[in-house]
Amino acid sequence: MAEFRHDPIHRRWVIVTVDRKRAPKDFEIPQRVPDEGFCPFCEGHESKTPPEIYAVRIGSKPDRPGWKVRVLPNKYPALTGRTEEIERGAQGNYDWINGVGSHEIIVDHPQHHVLFQQMGLEHLAILIETYRRRLAALKEDVRFRYVIIFKNHGATSGASLNHQHTQLIAMPVIPPIAAMALATARQHFHNKERCLFCDLIDQELADGSRVVAQNDDFVCFAPYASRFPFEMNIMPKKHHHDFATMDDRLLRPAAEIICQAIGRLAVLFGDPPFNLNIHTSPNTNQLPRRAGYWSTLSHDWHWQIEIIPCLGATQGFEWGTGLFINPTPPEEAARFLREAPL
Amino acid sequence: MAEFRHDPIHRRWVIVTVDRKRAPKDFEIPQRVPDEGFCPFCEGHESKTPPEIYAVRIGSKPDRPGWKVRVLPNKYPALTGRTEEIERGAQGNYDWINGVGSHEIIVDHPQHHVLFQQMGLEHLAILIETYRRRLAALKEDVRFRYVIIFKNHGATSGASLNHQHTQLIAMPVIPPIAAMALATARQHFHNKERCLFCDLIDQELADGSRVVAQNDDFVCFAPYASRFPFEMNIMPKKHHHDFATMDDRLLRPAAEIICQAIGRLAVLFGDPPFNLNIHTSPNTNQLPRRAGYWSTLSHDWHWQIEIIPCLGATQGFEWGTGLFINPTPPEEAARFLREAPL
Repeated sequence: MAEFRHDPIHRRWVIVTVDRKRAPKDFEIPQRVPDEGFCPFCEGHESKTPPEIYAVRIGSKPDRPGWKVRVLPNKYPALTGRTEEIERGAQGNYDWINGVGSHEIIVDHPQHHVLFQQMGLEHLAILIETYRRRLAALKEDVRFRYVIIFKNHGATSGASLNHQHTQLIAMPVIPPIAAMALATARQHFHNKERCLFCDLIDQELADGSRVVAQNDDFVCFAPYASRFPFEMNIMPKKHHHDFATMDDRLLRPAAEIICQAIGRLAVLFGDPPFNLNIHTSPNTNQLPRRAGYWSTLSHDWHWQIEIIPCLGATQGFEWGTGLFINPTPPEEAARFLREAPL
Repeated sequence: MAEFRHDPIHRRWVIVTVDRKRAPKDFEIPQRVPDEGFCPFCEGHESKTPPEIYAVRIGSKPDRPGWKVRVLPNKYPALTGRTEEIERGAQGNYDWINGVGSHEIIVDHPQHHVLFQQMGLEHLAILIETYRRRLAALKEDVRFRYVIIFKNHGATSGASLNHQHTQLIAMPVIPPIAAMALATARQHFHNKERCLFCDLIDQELADGSRVVAQNDDFVCFAPYASRFPFEMNIMPKKHHHDFATMDDRLLRPAAEIICQAIGRLAVLFGDPPFNLNIHTSPNTNQLPRRAGYWSTLSHDWHWQIEIIPCLGATQGFEWGTGLFINPTPPEEAARFLREAPL
C-alpha cells in the first residue's frame, strides 16, 4: 500500500510506498568520480588555482601552503560580473535578467582523501564559520537577492572533483523552490503568528519517529514527505532566520549535527553521493526595494540544511510532474539512520 | 555570459549559459539498460504478464499473440486499489491521502527492438489512439483527479525494460508541477481572457528561432526557459485542453510531430535516454466538487507533450533549489534539431 503525503513547506504531494520499505542493502550505490591525476585543490597546488578570496591560515601567506579552509572564485562560474549592473527585460511573453552573480568554491580541507565526516569537529566548525563569513560578505552586495550554499559529493551528485569542496552562488533572483517555501512560511506566519518550521520541529521532537539525531541546539530528521530515500533536514531548535548571523556558540553544535547526519549515512551506505543545501533567508540588505513583502522575514523564515542522498536513477518523470515516488518511508529511514553504529 | 530566463508557465527562473553552447558532440550519452534475457512484453510471452486491460488486435483472442498495442496493469504499481474509497486525514501539521490509484503499462509495439521513431506513422497513430482511449477510460473514475501519461526510455530515464512501453498513473491529487502550471494558466485567462499557451505558440511561430518542427496541427519547439539541453514541447496549434477528447483527425499529425521530435533527437544523439510526459487537463468528471475553481478549465488549459532528454548527471542541487543551469541555449538546441538530417 502506498500513501500520498503532503509537504507543508513546499506544498507538494509525494507518494510514499509504505510496503516496499527499501532498506540500505537494497540500494546499489553509484560509483565515485574516477580520481583524476592532478588535483588543484590539494595543499601545495595553490598556484594552479585563481588567487584566493579568503582562507583560514596559520600565519602563512595567501596562495601558499599552510591553510585549513580556502575560498576561490570558481574557474567555470555559472554566473559572473562582480561589478555589472542588473538589467531586466522582456521579450514578448518571456522575461530575462542578465546573468550577474558570484560563484565561489570553498575547499573544505587541505588533504585530498579526507571525507566530510573525517575532518573532526574543530575543523568542521572552522568550515561552517567560513560558510557563514562568505555568506555575510556576499550579502553586502545589494544586487544579490539570494545566496545558495551547497555541496555536491560523489559522481551522481554533479561533483566533478573528489576533493571535498562546497560552493556558493549569489544571484539576483530567489530560486524557485526557496521562493515557494518562503511564500508558504510567510502565509503561515500571517495566519498564525508562529513560525512554520518551529511548528514542524515541535511536532518532530514530540513524535520522535522521524528524528535521526539531536543535540541541545539542533535536530536532524527525515521529513514527513521525503522525496528521496534517507533524505534529512537539519534545523536549529531555536528560531533564527539567517545562517549569516548564526551565533558563534552554535558553530560547534552545527558541526556536530552535520557530522552525525553524514556519518550515519556513511555507516549505512559506505561513501554515498549526496547533496547538501543550506536554505537561508533572502538578502535582507535588499529589503528596501521590497520592504512590504519581506517585512516579517525574520519571523517567517527559519534556516535549514537539506541533505539529499543520491541513491538511484532519477526519472525525468519527476522533473516533468514534480511527483516523487519514494520507496523508503521516512520513519524507516530515520530508524536505520538512528540505529547506525557510529 | 549567462542569462536568467523566466518560464511563464511554471514561474521559475532558469540560468542559461549562453557562452558555453554545448553542442551534441559535447555530451556523453548514458548507456542503455542491459538487455535482460527474457522480456515479458514481447509478442508470444502474453502468459507471463497479468491479463490485459485492452489491446489493439487483428481478430486474435485476448492474452494471445496477434496484437499491435497491449495495455496491462503494472505488476509493480506505484498506486493500487481499483475500488477503494479515497480517505483523507491529517497528522498534526501534515496531511495524507491513502494511495489509491491506477498504474497501467502500454506496450507500444509487439517487437522488442523497435524504437519509437521506427514504428511508422500508422502504428504510432494507433498507439496515440490507445493513450487517448485509456486516458478517457480512467477519467470515468471520479476518484481520480489527474492522469499522467509518460514514457521513460533508456537507462538514466528510470526505465527498467528496453522494450518500448508507456505508463499511465491515475491519482486523486494533481501533481505539483501541473498544479502550478494550471494556476498560472488560470490566472492568465482570468486577466486576459486568452489562453497562455496560445499566446506562447503565437510568439514561437512568429519568432521561429526555437521552432524544431511543425505541421498544420502541431508545433514542436525548445522552450525559452528550457531547464535541460534539447528539451522540447509539442502543442496543438488550435486551442484544446484535453488530450482525452482529441479529434480523430489529429491522431496522424500528432504521430508525425512526435516521430519528428524523437527522430531528430536520435539523429543527433544515437539512442539517447529521454522522458516524454503528456500534460492534459485534470479530470473534468471531478468538476462538481471544485466547480468554482475549475469552471474555466476548457479555456485555461492547453494540452502539451514535454520531451526531456536525459543527457547528463542530475545534481541534487537542482532538486533542492529548483534552480537549473542549462549549458545549451534553446535557440542553439532548436537549430541543431531543425538541421538534423532526418
